[in-house]
Amino acid sequence: MENQILELQYAMDTFYFLVCGALVMWMAAGFAMLEAGLVRAKNTTEILTKNVALFAISCGMYMICGYAIMYGGDIFISSIGNDGVVLPELATITAEYLGVTAEVFAELSQSDIESAAWNVAVLAESKEAGFSGDSVYSNASDFFFQVVFVATAMSIVSGAVAERMKLWAFLAFAVVMTGFIYPMEGSWTWNGADVFGLFNLGDLGFADFAGSGIVHMAGASAALAGVLVLGARKGKYNKDGSVNAIPGANLPMATLGTFILWMGWFGFNGGSVLKLGDMSSSNAVAIVFMNTLMAASGGVIGALVVARLWFKKADLTMALNGALAGLVAITASPDSSTALVATLVGLAGGIIVVFSIVGLDKVKIDDPVGAISVHGTVGLFGLLIASAIGEATFIGQLVGALTIFVWVFGASLVVWFIIKAIMGIRITEEEEYEGADIAECGQEAYPEFTGK
Amino acid sequence: MENQILELQYAMDTFYFLVCGALVMWMAAGFAMLEAGLVRAKNTTEILTKNVALFAISCGMYMICGYAIMYGGDIFISSIGNDGVVLPELATITAEYLGVTAEVFAELSQSDIESAAWNVAVLAESKEAGFSGDSVYSNASDFFFQVVFVATAMSIVSGAVAERMKLWAFLAFAVVMTGFIYPMEGSWTWNGADVFGLFNLGDLGFADFAGSGIVHMAGASAALAGVLVLGARKGKYNKDGSVNAIPGANLPMATLGTFILWMGWFGFNGGSVLKLGDMSSSNAVAIVFMNTLMAASGGVIGALVVARLWFKKADLTMALNGALAGLVAITASPDSSTALVATLVGLAGGIIVVFSIVGLDKVKIDDPVGAISVHGTVGLFGLLIASAIGEATFIGQLVGALTIFVWVFGASLVVWFIIKAIMGIRITEEEEYEGADIAECGQEAYPEFTGK
Amino acid sequence: MENQILELQYAMDTFYFLVCGALVMWMAAGFAMLEAGLVRAKNTTEILTKNVALFAISCGMYMICGYAIMYGGDIFISSIGNDGVVLPELATITAEYLGVTAEVFAELSQSDIESAAWNVAVLAESKEAGFSGDSVYSNASDFFFQVVFVATAMSIVSGAVAERMKLWAFLAFAVVMTGFIYPMEGSWTWNGADVFGLFNLGDLGFADFAGSGIVHMAGASAALAGVLVLGARKGKYNKDGSVNAIPGANLPMATLGTFILWMGWFGFNGGSVLKLGDMSSSNAVAIVFMNTLMAASGGVIGALVVARLWFKKADLTMALNGALAGLVAITASPDSSTALVATLVGLAGGIIVVFSIVGLDKVKIDDPVGAISVHGTVGLFGLLIASAIGEATFIGQLVGALTIFVWVFGASLVVWFIIKAIMGIRITEEEEYEGADIAECGQEAYPEFTGK
Repeated sequence: MENQILELQYAMDTFYFLVCGALVMWMAAGFAMLEAGLVRAKNTTEILTKNVALFAISCGMYMICGYAIMYGGDIFISSIGNDGVVLPELATITAEYLGVTAEVFAELSQSDIESAAWNVAVLAESKEAGFSGDSVYSNASDFFFQVVFVATAMSIVSGAVAERMKLWAFLAFAVVMTGFIYPMEGSWTWNGADVFGLFNLGDLGFADFAGSGIVHMAGASAALAGVLVLGARKGKYNKDGSVNAIPGANLPMATLGTFILWMGWFGFNGGSVLKLGDMSSSNAVAIVFMNTLMAASGGVIGALVVARLWFKKADLTMALNGALAGLVAITASPDSSTALVATLVGLAGGIIVVFSIVGLDKVKIDDPVGAISVHGTVGLFGLLIASAIGEATFIGQLVGALTIFVWVFGASLVVWFIIKAIMGIRITEEEEYEGADIAECGQEAYPEFTGK
Repeated sequence: MENQILELQYAMDTFYFLVCGALVMWMAAGFAMLEAGLVRAKNTTEILTKNVALFAISCGMYMICGYAIMYGGDIFISSIGNDGVVLPELATITAEYLGVTAEVFAELSQSDIESAAWNVAVLAESKEAGFSGDSVYSNASDFFFQVVFVATAMSIVSGAVAERMKLWAFLAFAVVMTGFIYPMEGSWTWNGADVFGLFNLGDLGFADFAGSGIVHMAGASAALAGVLVLGARKGKYNKDGSVNAIPGANLPMATLGTFILWMGWFGFNGGSVLKLGDMSSSNAVAIVFMNTLMAASGGVIGALVVARLWFKKADLTMALNGALAGLVAITASPDSSTALVATLVGLAGGIIVVFSIVGLDKVKIDDPVGAISVHGTVGLFGLLIASAIGEATFIGQLVGALTIFVWVFGASLVVWFIIKAIMGIRITEEEEYEGADIAECGQEAYPEFTGK
Repeated sequence: MENQILELQYAMDTFYFLVCGALVMWMAAGFAMLEAGLVRAKNTTEILTKNVALFAISCGMYMICGYAIMYGGDIFISSIGNDGVVLPELATITAEYLGVTAEVFAELSQSDIESAAWNVAVLAESKEAGFSGDSVYSNASDFFFQVVFVATAMSIVSGAVAERMKLWAFLAFAVVMTGFIYPMEGSWTWNGADVFGLFNLGDLGFADFAGSGIVHMAGASAALAGVLVLGARKGKYNKDGSVNAIPGANLPMATLGTFILWMGWFGFNGGSVLKLGDMSSSNAVAIVFMNTLMAASGGVIGALVVARLWFKKADLTMALNGALAGLVAITASPDSSTALVATLVGLAGGIIVVFSIVGLDKVKIDDPVGAISVHGTVGLFGLLIASAIGEATFIGQLVGALTIFVWVFGASLVVWFIIKAIMGIRITEEEEYEGADIAECGQEAYPEFTGK
């Protein structure tokens, strides 16, 4: 009967992971709609294609090598699923770990033992590395939950480089980012490995609950490198230093995208508790859901009020970016805030994002959807504020933020330059004028609406 | 081991709340898309901004005071999250309530005890008030589930006053509605408090399972008050009494909104069982899901057939409103119907809504999206029919409906008048002609499509 | 206490069904958005109306007779919900089955006993029929999960016959398809009944995990019959054999629809494990989620690369159909693949679908959204490849595919001809030119965008 309880807990934790993972997968639709709504009609098909393709590439690359690089499970590369190799010694460790006797194990199928064993092995490893963790659940659910995070990081990039980057150059970058650059920094943070064997972020007091830095700032760092190599869109900045607003073609779509992201974020943050099936864990999950909700609300209010005071208008795109900024800001510490603190952290994020968007335009960093501000500037804020709220240290957060930025920005810059040298990264001026849709995809997104 | 089972049940019930709450939060996107699809292009950005902002305000106000007003937990106002004050006497009650010994408690963390204690305190209170309830789950999950209902009630208002109300006047109303008006009537119903100390709705046999009246008719009552103060859109009604149809700009968006609401309603009704983790509760949850599905289906068929017979056309917007009407109709009693009865209740709702929409136009109550009919007329029907289906009494439902309407309509009317006096509630005639988007938000929703 | 564990497992399995069912219901929105995005603006309202109405009809007909035809529960036709007839002998079987004593039963309410009894009865029946199964969960959750599959099958048809079929003729077909044609083949497959008393597919080694054939190929077979009776759209094929591309009006909408379907498919496949609450089942559910994700990713890459090589463009609609093809392909065997194999199966599906779409155009089978290729051609592939991956036999799959196709195609052909004779199935040439929206629904989908 004790085994039955264990199995129930295992099943509950697995299901919790899968539900949260499905919500994070749903964020891919959110990014696609947000970006499609904020670009011009003539570049919409292309950004949609990028979003669909980058998601597929993320899943593929993370399966092929990313997961192994990040979590070191080299023996599981080819066996995620139900045909993994059973290592007898792992079964023994597992039995000890679970505190069950051999008889109980005899009742389990090969694949069950294997799955449990795998988890125990991972746990044993991660504990050795100084990170705590005592969840036991299906390895497939773990892969499912991890892989959708990779896609999230990559989705951040597509918006920033919109309306001017070659589609296949972007996809080439996606291969390296999701298969190597992100998994490397993921291994130093969530897997607790030493950074190039030099120092350990966990030892310095670095903590990033669901990835303000590890996912969001990382995505923004790669995006910034791409934008710098790529340059601004034609017609965005005037010689006198003034900025031309280039409005998005479909704001309901952008709003839908924001709501999708808001909803998906419950899975993103809520699933990052990594365990549900006891009182303490489920309390933590509930607090994370609540704080995620409140931070987004705070972000909307912060951005909307600043926009009203500054621009004299209730700027919808700022309100949307405010919601996302609130979410990014709380992502490093949604477990350790009260609802009120989470609201205030979100509010601050919403205020910061408006200044960051305006500021980046001042220095002519052209980011059509505001992704670098939302995920980069506010991601950094989220990391730092986490040291005031949770158990992270300020120095740990600072070093962690620097490590993530230096690695992802640096590696990305190299990759963007290589891609530029080999295949070019920018569409021609004529293609840019005509729109990337016809040039890259041969299909207009709204053939009947734009009156061409 | 018994404690382990208890914890599993606690975790399951908490997770169930969170999943249902996330689905209800998703309804915010549904209202936004529905309303954005049913207004004209020139008022789309503004209605989107209202929907995003009202959601944020609902969360903020309910945290600040709404939740405390509704459920009386004054000591928890500032402590929702993990830093609540532990009252030792509550811990004792909790231990007794849960039937666990002191040793078990010793193993629990401070925040776990607090959380459990809080629930027990709430339960003890609510039981004293004559309402049954024996769920134990995370207080944060309870707040999360409750707060999204507030946003739902408020979302109903935005559609009815669309295309002519000032944005900031609307948001000012949202502050009072979500922070005070809704929580007051919520305290009389779901929390079982006496209505102004005069009488008790529960004693009269009032019951409203998930809020046909408490949420939907309440929202519609506030909307009606707003519409009466505001007046109709320019050009809607002719002097000869005839009505001009003002078609919505984007019907796929409106359809999407309806499907989102349909899906979210599983959480709205399904979560209102308030407990999942035993056979009887989970049967109830399953029945509620099924009946919610069937009622919406019945509503579509009812509205579509009436529209076909009456207007000779398969009117899509009526079919969409039919689906929503079916959902509103069953919301007061989704637990006590068979699938067939639920379908018929939905069918009736779908028929009623068509007549109500046409009827309101006859008396020149201009509701661009049909919200007053869907949520008000059909909400009332849902309350009353519940007395035929479930355990509610007809007199109880009647008094309950009256109480909700008189309070929400009356209080809203006062608030709308105050707002009108202070800041005005209607945009100028020129702004209305040009569209609220440019006037209020400075952004067109579809700058490239409308051929301006 | 053992009973408590049992109840927890029952509750967990019920909830798992409901969450998965809600995801499958969400697929209705996916089909609606996909099809609305891929037709021309002038036929959008009509396809939306069809999608909303077919979903309602599916629910209604499956409740009235479909469920009873498929699973033989004649005594439950009128009693799905909480007022079923309790058969005392079932209670006894149930008690034995559950291994609980009479005392435990005495504590349960009438409806709980009934519900449990019903499940046991179904199980006993299905076991007799040679199909395994040992889940115990709420019957309402079972109905909820099954009924959304019917709607999925029917949704496939609406896309293929878009832009030229009469709305009410389509809905008449929906009545027969969801109330009779689909339930009949469902009874031969998932319920294990003999095909017209002649032979048993299960005995031949037929297996179709979540319905590559039973749902998807079945829907496509009905669609193919409809398309053949209906003929191609005016202007699609030229006399010289060349094909005119008729681009969809709203590709972001189509992309959203694809993402919705992708997400909903986790419920479609994941729920088809039919049980969650033990280690082995939850592992299976996790593997199914993972493989569903990977197959869609593979499908995107397969279709995108083929389109790039063949058409020289990154064709978005092919990428979207590729994702769906990947999902259809893995649906017959998502439980028995590794992640890598699932990706390759999806990749193959994505490649096949491009050739199938081009090929059908060659033989002038006009399918505006590619539904016959995605669900039919790739559904067949999914069935056959399942014999290489899982425990199904090739001969069983072949006979099963033939049985489904011959029955659904044949019966549909008869029904389409009868409808044609009685009410006609095609709108007039003038209506087709003007668009089905005005003719059938009296409402344009985008009245302000198309510049009429």
